[in-house]
Amino acid sequence: MKKVLITGISGFVGSHLAEYCLSKNAKVFGLIRHRSNLKNVAHLRDQIEFHEGDVEDIASMYLAMDAIKPDIVFHLAAQSYVPYSWTATAKTMSTNVGGTVNVLEAIRRSAPKAAVLVIGSSEEYGLVKEGEWPIKETNPLRPLSPYGVSKVAEDMLGYQYNRSYGLNIIVSRAFNHTGPRRGKEFVIPSFIKRVLVANEKRSKIAVGNLDAIRDFTDVRDIVRAYWLLVTKGTPGEVYNICSGRGHTMKDVLYRIINYIDPSLNNKIVIDKRYLRPSDVPVLIGSHDKITDELGWYPEIPFNTTLKDTIKWMKGKQ
Amino acid sequence: MKKVLITGISGFVGSHLAEYCLSKNAKVFGLIRHRSNLKNVAHLRDQIEFHEGDVEDIASMYLAMDAIKPDIVFHLAAQSYVPYSWTATAKTMSTNVGGTVNVLEAIRRSAPKAAVLVIGSSEEYGLVKEGEWPIKETNPLRPLSPYGVSKVAEDMLGYQYNRSYGLNIIVSRAFNHTGPRRGKEFVIPSFIKRVLVANEKRSKIAVGNLDAIRDFTDVRDIVRAYWLLVTKGTPGEVYNICSGRGHTMKDVLYRIINYIDPSLNNKIVIDKRYLRPSDVPVLIGSHDKITDELGWYPEIPFNTTLKDTIKWMKGKQ
Repeated sequence: MKKVLITGISGFVGSHLAEYCLSKNAKVFGLIRHRSNLKNVAHLRDQIEFHEGDVEDIASMYLAMDAIKPDIVFHLAAQSYVPYSWTATAKTMSTNVGGTVNVLEAIRRSAPKAAVLVIGSSEEYGLVKEGEWPIKETNPLRPLSPYGVSKVAEDMLGYQYNRSYGLNIIVSRAFNHTGPRRGKEFVIPSFIKRVLVANEKRSKIAVGNLDAIRDFTDVRDIVRAYWLLVTKGTPGEVYNICSGRGHTMKDVLYRIINYIDPSLNNKIVIDKRYLRPSDVPVLIGSHDKITDELGWYPEIPFNTTLKDTIKWMKGKQ
Repeated sequence: MKKVLITGISGFVGSHLAEYCLSKNAKVFGLIRHRSNLKNVAHLRDQIEFHEGDVEDIASMYLAMDAIKPDIVFHLAAQSYVPYSWTATAKTMSTNVGGTVNVLEAIRRSAPKAAVLVIGSSEEYGLVKEGEWPIKETNPLRPLSPYGVSKVAEDMLGYQYNRSYGLNIIVSRAFNHTGPRRGKEFVIPSFIKRVLVANEKRSKIAVGNLDAIRDFTDVRDIVRAYWLLVTKGTPGEVYNICSGRGHTMKDVLYRIINYIDPSLNNKIVIDKRYLRPSDVPVLIGSHDKITDELGWYPEIPFNTTLKDTIKWMKGKQ
């Protein structure tokens, strides 16, 4: 029985990944902070062994890694909300960059044979020039947000710890992903929430830049890829995870409106407060590498993801 | 009279840069920490206005930037010794990545029009594959040391703060540089010291990997390039600074032995303690971009650099 440690288990992706690992008969350990909100994993409480610790505290990482001695580590813990990275840039760096150093140092000391997934991001690519779509892993990195910079550093730490110490580290660069339990501050749940409110109150739907093009994958497809990467990926390598298809945010919004109440499509207003200091105009990825090497491809249609997310958000109201 | 702030002014490069800025009739401000060793700038003490602060402390950066309101900032302060980055990885990240965030945030608040040089490094390139020499700025980044990872992050922060906030930031990637006042822990002064000791005591000269190939530039050529970059470079762009020529460390060692006492060349022994967990086999850069755009090229011959460094080290014994 494989011992799997998930840092950031109480998050959106962490909860789906925990479910997937349990379905693979793994023994799941979760790193949580004191007072972490555990609602995302409440239904799995009896099946997960929780350990308290903070990735920014190396001593707590040593304690957790010594106690668990995991075979697999998914290092999901991060400040993962892009807009907050402009407000709290130093904190984003200390959690994401410093935290990853601590997790990798603890693995190096206490579980040097563990297979480790370091979570990069499509935000690392940032500015993409004409002719660079779909984005391959070899594309230049030109991050446009502090979050993107922090993920470049995590990605490079994964590479460097593999090269320096032979650690069994694989790096993922997932493009946008969504689904049930996604935080309401993220774009799709945030759109859904505003449309649900507008439906109830017949109010306006305020949005930011609707021209941005993004490549969305269902979180359940993402966690399946994560499992495949740590069990069969090549250490020291980086893999995109994406659908390979781009949607404008306008298209996404109209699909949501269409599912909830098509008559709301004249309620949209642009609100500058939703604009970012710098934004990535187009992010469409290529998943050729993970498809060719490991046979992964996205299985859940985008409409299913949207409908499941709407259903989940309605249930929460 | 331009107001120039140099973080890390008490370091090797900082001291040479301060001299160069003074020769350009700039008013020079230096950021130093409480108890910084000021021997490198002792001869300039009357010409520099020192401010105490620590790049890891944002409040001290706000204070310094408010007091100085610089026209130009050279952000040199860093944990710059590659081998120490394996020992103190988290500290290297907090000083280099977190410190750069704080410096840029303070500039954004108090000196948003300043021209800023962010110091990347050839260590960002790390693993260089066959056919990738000489290394251009577009080469993939595959850092092999935590220091290299930290410099990738600094480099990307420079890019991202330019894109997000329109700050006037230029990024340099200098290859190896040396000259008088270089710390004795760095390779060339360290070689010189061991050869001087061997010359005196007829003892062995213990060294690490002599096959590594490096591209050395005189620090005085480097600081001239730094000045050119902040005054004439294109914001948001990155520039290599290098000689374009590679020397094996063996060649460097033999040149030093030859200047001190040629009969010592049979005293060399390989000592594993000097080997790094992962090392860059070949680093040879291309300076085409800075030469084509700004007319910079290295002027000081390598032998002059070595002789001046030997002379300086002999004077210190």
